[in-house]
Amino acid sequence: MSPRIYLAGPEVFLPDPLAVAARKKAACVRHGFVGVFPLDAGLDLTGLSGPEAGRRIAAVNEDLMRGCDLLIANMTPFRSPSMDPGTAYEMGFMRALGRPVLGYTTRTGDLVTRTRALLPCRPHAGGGFADPDGLLVEDFAMVDNLMMVAAVETSGSPVMVAETDGPIDGLGGFERCLRAAAKLFPNADR
Amino acid sequence: MSPRIYLAGPEVFLPDPLAVAARKKAACVRHGFVGVFPLDAGLDLTGLSGPEAGRRIAAVNEDLMRGCDLLIANMTPFRSPSMDPGTAYEMGFMRALGRPVLGYTTRTGDLVTRTRALLPCRPHAGGGFADPDGLLVEDFAMVDNLMMVAAVETSGSPVMVAETDGPIDGLGGFERCLRAAAKLFPNADR
Repeated sequence: MSPRIYLAGPEVFLPDPLAVAARKKAACVRHGFVGVFPLDAGLDLTGLSGPEAGRRIAAVNEDLMRGCDLLIANMTPFRSPSMDPGTAYEMGFMRALGRPVLGYTTRTGDLVTRTRALLPCRPHAGGGFADPDGLLVEDFAMVDNLMMVAAVETSGSPVMVAETDGPIDGLGGFERCLRAAAKLFPNADR
Repeated sequence: MSPRIYLAGPEVFLPDPLAVAARKKAACVRHGFVGVFPLDAGLDLTGLSGPEAGRRIAAVNEDLMRGCDLLIANMTPFRSPSMDPGTAYEMGFMRALGRPVLGYTTRTGDLVTRTRALLPCRPHAGGGFADPDGLLVEDFAMVDNLMMVAAVETSGSPVMVAETDGPIDGLGGFERCLRAAAKLFPNADR
């Protein structure tokens, strides 16, 4: 049976999320995997309040993750120097289940470079830089917060970083993750 | 034995994180808990490269989380309309371990209100609003992404939201979380 990959990322917020989901799933199949997209449950949210609908979606997404063998996260910066926090939550979730977590970003640069480009930072008393709120910009030469990057690296491969900035739904990094995933599941049915 | 609370939040980036840690730990003790701060391991990172140090810190934080009975997250917006993604990762991690996840924010407003205040959003074709990249601003009448908010709500209490905007290290919401936590651990040694 083909291993199942949870397709985490902010693509659910795109105007046509199912189009991206279809492209990602097709790529999964080419590499011997089954892709599972957060919207796959096809929930009927009729009549639910906002918070009721939100809790229902979250419960379904957690069930979908429990049914997957690994996760590939789109870690592209999202409304900030960092990735979508909902996707970060899902990376932590799968990590705690002991399953591999892979990731990619369609943008260049590490966290410090991107934070300084987006926000007026100043030198930090202890070295490095502070953001406008005085909070240290962590500098571990990583593309994002160390928790997520370390989860990927200890799963066996680096975060796949784009060589030039591309759209959030570009799949070059995703394809590289699939090749790395294939090495983690060498006996998969492909 | 007092239950152990993992103190997740962006306070680790403050100029004096140990001062905040001490205040949070003292509040924990008053409510019959032991607070565990991410910097508690007192790691010696001498001689390590940035990525090596990052991976070491992440491994230690995950070990600290495994040793805790619940988590209280500071979900205050961080360099964006949303919370710190490293803290979101930790919420997902503890959630997958089946342990209660509580949260608070020192700022007012829901995710849509804050996103619209921070970024030039426009009406979305499917209803609601889109951010400048065309990505839908999710609207579930929640203070942040539904994954984190639902994790808190299904742990038994709402996200504790400040009534007026306060500093990121304000402890009013944290104290309210401690009172909610005390109800989850009624037989704790207090």
